[in-house]
Amino acid sequence: MADTLAALRSLMASHTPPLDALVVPSEDYHQSEYVSARDKRRAFVSGFTGSAGLALVTKNEALLWTDGRYFLQAEQQLSDEWKLMRMGEDPSVELWISTTLPEASAIGIDFWCISAETAQKWKSLFAKKQQNLVPTTRNLVDEVWKDQPQAEINPVHVHPLKFSGRSVSDKLKDLRDNLKKEKARGIIVTSLDEVVWLYNVRGSDVSYSPVVHAFAVVTTKLAFFYVDERKLSSEVKSYMEENKIIVKDYNAVSSDVALLASNQLTSAKDLQSNDASETEVSSQKIWVDPRCCYSLYSLLRPDQILLQPSPLALPKSLKNPVEMEGLKNAHIRDGAAVVQYFAWLDKQMKEIYGASGYFKESESQNSKNHSGDAKLTEVSVSDKLEEFRASKEHFRGLSFPTISSVGPNGAIIHYGPQAKTCAELDPNSMYLCDSGAQYLDGTTDITRTVHFGKPSEHEKRCYTAVLKGHIALGNARFPNGTTGHALDVLARVPLWSYGLDYRHGTGHGIGSYLNVHEGPHSITFRPGLSVPLQASMTVTDEPGYYEDGKFGIRLENVLIIKEAATQFNYANKGYLEFEHITWAPYQTKLIDASLLLPEEIKWVNSYHMKCRDILAPYLNESDKAWLNQATEPIAA
Amino acid sequence: MADTLAALRSLMASHTPPLDALVVPSEDYHQSEYVSARDKRRAFVSGFTGSAGLALVTKNEALLWTDGRYFLQAEQQLSDEWKLMRMGEDPSVELWISTTLPEASAIGIDFWCISAETAQKWKSLFAKKQQNLVPTTRNLVDEVWKDQPQAEINPVHVHPLKFSGRSVSDKLKDLRDNLKKEKARGIIVTSLDEVVWLYNVRGSDVSYSPVVHAFAVVTTKLAFFYVDERKLSSEVKSYMEENKIIVKDYNAVSSDVALLASNQLTSAKDLQSNDASETEVSSQKIWVDPRCCYSLYSLLRPDQILLQPSPLALPKSLKNPVEMEGLKNAHIRDGAAVVQYFAWLDKQMKEIYGASGYFKESESQNSKNHSGDAKLTEVSVSDKLEEFRASKEHFRGLSFPTISSVGPNGAIIHYGPQAKTCAELDPNSMYLCDSGAQYLDGTTDITRTVHFGKPSEHEKRCYTAVLKGHIALGNARFPNGTTGHALDVLARVPLWSYGLDYRHGTGHGIGSYLNVHEGPHSITFRPGLSVPLQASMTVTDEPGYYEDGKFGIRLENVLIIKEAATQFNYANKGYLEFEHITWAPYQTKLIDASLLLPEEIKWVNSYHMKCRDILAPYLNESDKAWLNQATEPIAA
Repeated sequence: MADTLAALRSLMASHTPPLDALVVPSEDYHQSEYVSARDKRRAFVSGFTGSAGLALVTKNEALLWTDGRYFLQAEQQLSDEWKLMRMGEDPSVELWISTTLPEASAIGIDFWCISAETAQKWKSLFAKKQQNLVPTTRNLVDEVWKDQPQAEINPVHVHPLKFSGRSVSDKLKDLRDNLKKEKARGIIVTSLDEVVWLYNVRGSDVSYSPVVHAFAVVTTKLAFFYVDERKLSSEVKSYMEENKIIVKDYNAVSSDVALLASNQLTSAKDLQSNDASETEVSSQKIWVDPRCCYSLYSLLRPDQILLQPSPLALPKSLKNPVEMEGLKNAHIRDGAAVVQYFAWLDKQMKEIYGASGYFKESESQNSKNHSGDAKLTEVSVSDKLEEFRASKEHFRGLSFPTISSVGPNGAIIHYGPQAKTCAELDPNSMYLCDSGAQYLDGTTDITRTVHFGKPSEHEKRCYTAVLKGHIALGNARFPNGTTGHALDVLARVPLWSYGLDYRHGTGHGIGSYLNVHEGPHSITFRPGLSVPLQASMTVTDEPGYYEDGKFGIRLENVLIIKEAATQFNYANKGYLEFEHITWAPYQTKLIDASLLLPEEIKWVNSYHMKCRDILAPYLNESDKAWLNQATEPIAA
Repeated sequence: MADTLAALRSLMASHTPPLDALVVPSEDYHQSEYVSARDKRRAFVSGFTGSAGLALVTKNEALLWTDGRYFLQAEQQLSDEWKLMRMGEDPSVELWISTTLPEASAIGIDFWCISAETAQKWKSLFAKKQQNLVPTTRNLVDEVWKDQPQAEINPVHVHPLKFSGRSVSDKLKDLRDNLKKEKARGIIVTSLDEVVWLYNVRGSDVSYSPVVHAFAVVTTKLAFFYVDERKLSSEVKSYMEENKIIVKDYNAVSSDVALLASNQLTSAKDLQSNDASETEVSSQKIWVDPRCCYSLYSLLRPDQILLQPSPLALPKSLKNPVEMEGLKNAHIRDGAAVVQYFAWLDKQMKEIYGASGYFKESESQNSKNHSGDAKLTEVSVSDKLEEFRASKEHFRGLSFPTISSVGPNGAIIHYGPQAKTCAELDPNSMYLCDSGAQYLDGTTDITRTVHFGKPSEHEKRCYTAVLKGHIALGNARFPNGTTGHALDVLARVPLWSYGLDYRHGTGHGIGSYLNVHEGPHSITFRPGLSVPLQASMTVTDEPGYYEDGKFGIRLENVLIIKEAATQFNYANKGYLEFEHITWAPYQTKLIDASLLLPEEIKWVNSYHMKCRDILAPYLNESDKAWLNQATEPIAA
């Protein structure tokens, strides 16, 4: 590690201009949430492997910023050379730079790895002290990273209409209508999920998300796909041609964006026919999402940029009937796997640990030790869960690293168990499992929290409060125009009444065989410009409660938003409601029914009856019997 | 009216420069919600008397903008020369000007009657077409308004410490601490309630609000009070001297702000002692609230202005223990008056209209006609309500025009009944009464909706849904940092479940013998920068439902915010809760108990028991008996 820092500092000193500091962000060229192995530059430099963070190397300091989910992990992973900067407590990186580093400092960063929005914000702040944000001539981390993984050549697959539900030509038509409406003659698409959604292709360049490392540029007449052509089979190449998508090399995007800026971006065919000028005079703007990498953004003239959220985010979030059907089916198969898993785990916990089990409360605490050689760990059980999922039709992998956490680990919201260090299952502790998968017909995400021994009254009360919030949000009806922020409080009020809360949002959109976290909407306590919830969107409903050093509770279902058949329709706004599409029981043993309202009890029983009916065809007799017992109606 | 427009247009033509349009806003020099008679210029010009609106007179058009509360009233009051512009449907006035009026138009306005924030927004929009916002050399409406009321010389009273709870010197110290923190050497205070709150005085220059037409300027060393000195008795003058408040003429504020800008504003004493420079070099900024009139704002150099919300708004909203005690007492006396009123009205409705009354549902609809000569109208009954209030200790007047509305009038949210045209009470209709008063120890605001005959099932369902929202909001506990916007949904969800809603906010702060609508916080569905709710604030809880042409329902109590003794205190944030301080029964006849949860029924019964206990000492035997019946517990 010390070598890495020394090597970086040496490159910084010999850089033109010499750099006073180097910023190493977590993001790849596409501002992705999950990145490929060769893009984990910040983790390589700092040793901190959490999903979010930013490293700053100066001449004599090394600092790492990360958020509250990762304070503990970062403290453990960072060496003495590094200083942890706690987001929300310490000053932000840009503030630290502008106050700590001297006037006229040069701050280097790879302009491919920073968004236009962030770069502009930093530049204007730095300008106050004549500090400069400088593009590094090449990625300095790549230079010092001896065993950096190679870029993989993973095949691109066509995502057929029977799963995507809408043709590329229809999607391009809608996009071009949007361009015309905003008088834009083109758009640069850099988000990986937007590129593959638009062109109805999928790949495996990034773990957990079936995307392809690629850019797209779409003008009012032409559509370009920038990708390593070795990833395309001849079938895929034909598909591209049929759909009039011009394939170019990944690295050609820069020169093409420059041509786009000067209105000279054409197809080979255009050149032959001398029809070089493809745009009307009236539309000179180029649409760029604020998350576009600053390197491409910088190729455009400021006066020609239309900087606003991509017009692909909303249509991608509005699932078409085929996607909706696929999502529902994927969630049924996924729910069956989750039931198989908990039935299996119940049996193991009883056999190996002598636990009273999923249904029965032991009189006292169980012995904590496993009997014999058999042993369950957070990782071994989550591997078993993956096995159950992998046996299902259309399975293509997990949608994020499974959070399989026992007792205190459950309180670490983004806990990622490691095979060597993870905890053993414990019949006396809560067990939280947040997991999901990628199926060809849809992406899933579900959280259940269970206890195989004797939960405390406090644990039951907390579980019940979380469940009440989960139910209240899911049962809400609301007029069109309502944001997720407005509804967020419904999931918190039952916890707030005890003085409890949770430090994360309540819901996120979910993709169709795409990213497990998808915008543009969300359900969050953070105010701000939020996109209203709309019919055909998906959103999770996942309140929680976390007691540091003790346990974590979270309950998560995926909901779809649909029109509500309300008795009235005040102000002609149209009203919306949620429909649960996740199917797996809540653990009735953890519910304190005396804290539930009659209508809440009714809801739980009705949801459980649906689980029985819907999952039965996917379960064997023994798992069916387990599910029947798990869904026995509760009484007030 | 035609004469007025002609006269205005003639003045516009002879103005230097000639004006293409004249804007006449509703506001006075202080951006007040309620204005004095002589300041009702927009009403005089247009004939429209609603509280909110804006008139625009061009060479050949006359337009009036107002909001949804007033569309109906404006249609009735505007003559043919005027065109109604519906806010929220038609383009805003600034957009209309910038798109409709020719390039380089001169738009005149009295710079005293427009806020700095609005003026700046308009100017930058108008600049696109080289249009100019021009200050009129004098107020052109005053020129043509032959019988404009004279400015009244109403006495200023000292608001004693036993009601204000905090001395002027303490308030000035806090204010100066704020100035120092922001490195400001002075502040211009233009909001009337802020001026009188700061100096602990009250007056009667404006209906419904005990304020004085005055400005304040406070520097790190000096405090100025700009007021017509004829309003000050020798006692008040001594009070001012004791508190080191320098009294100057109302019209001297302009020249003093100019002196402040050039750092030459001093007291006579300073001049004698040659200690003219009162400020440190480091603090050159002058604090101005965005609502400051543009005339004063324009006297400052742009680089010396600190434009941000006044530091007086928050401390004014945080009631001190003396104010809190006073508010509670005022609300008890006010509740007694409301009970006396409804007991009286119940008797009248039975006697005059043969209604079945407040408690009993008639089998069928009552006769609609009054018997004999006696007759009740919306205005005659609200006069009676004022009588009951006026008999209470410390009464000083109403806090806003009473909304006393029968049947369809209840659906007009800001209905103001007029003696000549108002409706008669009707035993077959809902009756909504929103009213409040000014007492020396506090300001009140309460709404109750009742029915003296046979309400329909639909009316009961709607009343019950409104009540459920009212209860849910009032019972919420929430962590510090939560905004009213986040909680707003709690009051709406029961209505939303039917597809019903209401088109207004859910709550506003209330003053201590001051404005009935007070910021900086609120409970509203509108997102935006909202101040978090804090302990010691007041806020109303007033959901409603309005069916056009049929009826209106609103239930409103004043709540105070206080620390909640929650079992836990997650993240050490501290939790808050509400306490109702309004005491008057809900009409149990209108409650469909089958739609209430057990805990809601319990809450209503408990609130009603408190009404009995708290109001009893203020009621005679007959009213007490009526209240006992009104507060009989309801069963599930």
